[in-house]
Amino acid sequence: MVQYVGVEHVIRLVASTGLPEVFTGLAGYIEEDFRRWADFEKAPRIASHSAHGVIELMPASDGRLYGFKYVNGHPRNTRSGLQTVTAFGVLADVATGYPQFLSEMTLTTALRTAATSALAARYLARRDAKVMALIGLGAQSEFQALAFKALLGLSRLRVYDIDRLATGKFLANLADQGFDITVASSSDEAVLGADIVTTVTADKQKATILSDNMVGAGVHINAVGGDCPGKTELQRELLLRADVFVEYPEQTRIEGEIQQMPADFPVTELWQVITGQAPGRRSDRQITVFDSVGFAIEDFSALRYLRDRVQGTDCYSEIDLLAEPDDPRDLFGLLRPALGRSVAALADIGA
Amino acid sequence: MVQYVGVEHVIRLVASTGLPEVFTGLAGYIEEDFRRWADFEKAPRIASHSAHGVIELMPASDGRLYGFKYVNGHPRNTRSGLQTVTAFGVLADVATGYPQFLSEMTLTTALRTAATSALAARYLARRDAKVMALIGLGAQSEFQALAFKALLGLSRLRVYDIDRLATGKFLANLADQGFDITVASSSDEAVLGADIVTTVTADKQKATILSDNMVGAGVHINAVGGDCPGKTELQRELLLRADVFVEYPEQTRIEGEIQQMPADFPVTELWQVITGQAPGRRSDRQITVFDSVGFAIEDFSALRYLRDRVQGTDCYSEIDLLAEPDDPRDLFGLLRPALGRSVAALADIGA
Repeated sequence: MVQYVGVEHVIRLVASTGLPEVFTGLAGYIEEDFRRWADFEKAPRIASHSAHGVIELMPASDGRLYGFKYVNGHPRNTRSGLQTVTAFGVLADVATGYPQFLSEMTLTTALRTAATSALAARYLARRDAKVMALIGLGAQSEFQALAFKALLGLSRLRVYDIDRLATGKFLANLADQGFDITVASSSDEAVLGADIVTTVTADKQKATILSDNMVGAGVHINAVGGDCPGKTELQRELLLRADVFVEYPEQTRIEGEIQQMPADFPVTELWQVITGQAPGRRSDRQITVFDSVGFAIEDFSALRYLRDRVQGTDCYSEIDLLAEPDDPRDLFGLLRPALGRSVAALADIGA
Repeated sequence: MVQYVGVEHVIRLVASTGLPEVFTGLAGYIEEDFRRWADFEKAPRIASHSAHGVIELMPASDGRLYGFKYVNGHPRNTRSGLQTVTAFGVLADVATGYPQFLSEMTLTTALRTAATSALAARYLARRDAKVMALIGLGAQSEFQALAFKALLGLSRLRVYDIDRLATGKFLANLADQGFDITVASSSDEAVLGADIVTTVTADKQKATILSDNMVGAGVHINAVGGDCPGKTELQRELLLRADVFVEYPEQTRIEGEIQQMPADFPVTELWQVITGQAPGRRSDRQITVFDSVGFAIEDFSALRYLRDRVQGTDCYSEIDLLAEPDDPRDLFGLLRPALGRSVAALADIGA
């Protein structure tokens, strides 16, 4: 049998574990996997593009476990009341090739994206960071706010969205979560006095959510929204002034903010910072950018976390995705009980 | 919700539909998709190799539906009582990117492989073919025999396997299915007088199951077992004497019998025969070879068949693989009920 974790299971897991603990747990698994970066077989995602959006498969393997995520991106889905992004993922045993664990990953991707952002900020933001600006209050925004609170203790937010309904939703969702929230009337106003700026807008275009003159010395920018070709949030000049950190350069140069820059634009890989092979923040005046696009290893970590966490709980069920005949060469034996005697055989015995 | 078809569901479907009808149904869907070959986005499978075996993702899309199959190949699995090959697959809506249908594909792959073989033979074998030799009586053998019976009315079999246990299993499984079976004491003996020769041995090596001198004029060879690099069943000289038909040349030249031949070895694509763009069998003396390796479109067809067949039956269930918040931008709202009031909020209200 294959263990199955659906949307209801994840909700139950969050309820029984506590959301801050889920964020710190996820960040721990992601950090652990980033520390052993060289162990992984890495590949860019495999995309199938259409006029409506993209469907992607993102595989990763550490030689013992193989994982992949199915994920789509369909910007116009919201018009018909659907999610822009849905996802699910699988873990399999490399030694036998058997799938072991299947999970929803729409909620889980939102959780791991925020956990990765907060993990990166722990290495890249100023240690005395207290205020975060959050621009874009869509589906990922509350996850970002709560992950930064869980991992960095950050509770002062300055938020902005062009859509008042999104702002209202955000405020309602976080009303009782211990935040001190200032609603700004523009992106410019939101970033005033912020130590960390998170951009997580949804428009699929080359936008300028942050221009060079909006960002002062010492700020850490957590750039989440620019995550596919043709979709960016930061002005080019700002990237030239900053030090840019990425997950997997081969992918980020296609999908991230640095798609605006030449192919040799210098970046530092986050795993190198986490392992101490490269410096993270070097001064209180440096501007750092985490150019986040989401990488398969983060999904691998998230699946590992879920699998480990649900054991011994009621947060999973089992599905018969695997055929398990007693004799492996007798796959057909599984169908035997389903077969009637054939007409010819019945004729033979005079029936 | 996503529709889920597990192993038990497939068994139930076979029981209620009848195995011959499943084979003809599957072959019909495969034929239909081969007829519209140009409509498909095709790609070689994406493989992750290890010392133990391989895990592959096989995507295909016709612009309306997107499908992929997860499949492993681990030759040593049988030593520990496990299947060499397990698989599952998914259909998704290209317009929204939403997965719609998830199915086991271990049994289903066995069914579609046999259905494809029989479909190819309908175009390539002599019309008066009455006797099939079947060499290799492993997990796929009964499926092959029954698919040829369902699609070509072939009931006379000459069978051989080096393993007597495999032979016993095969005979027991097909005892009451209306076959006239001769057990041969060698491959040479099995092919005597056969109009169709199906090779479906399991050893992962360059074997010579069929040598040139064993095959007479007019025979159709259904070469199923040679399906990955380093695994072949036919002698090179035999391929030079025959006309070779393949599913997808880019993949077959790597995985099929023709991996033994130069890159420009002439082959005919099966879809061209099915659409009438290329001749199949041209004379009663010609030797034809279907160099079968299994292609993603066959899995796509099989998933479509299953999906269509299970509607309105008890041969599927539903799983909550999709997060479906009322407001698509309020993904976090799904977690709201799972969150307690935070300590800070409780302190604020004097609790």
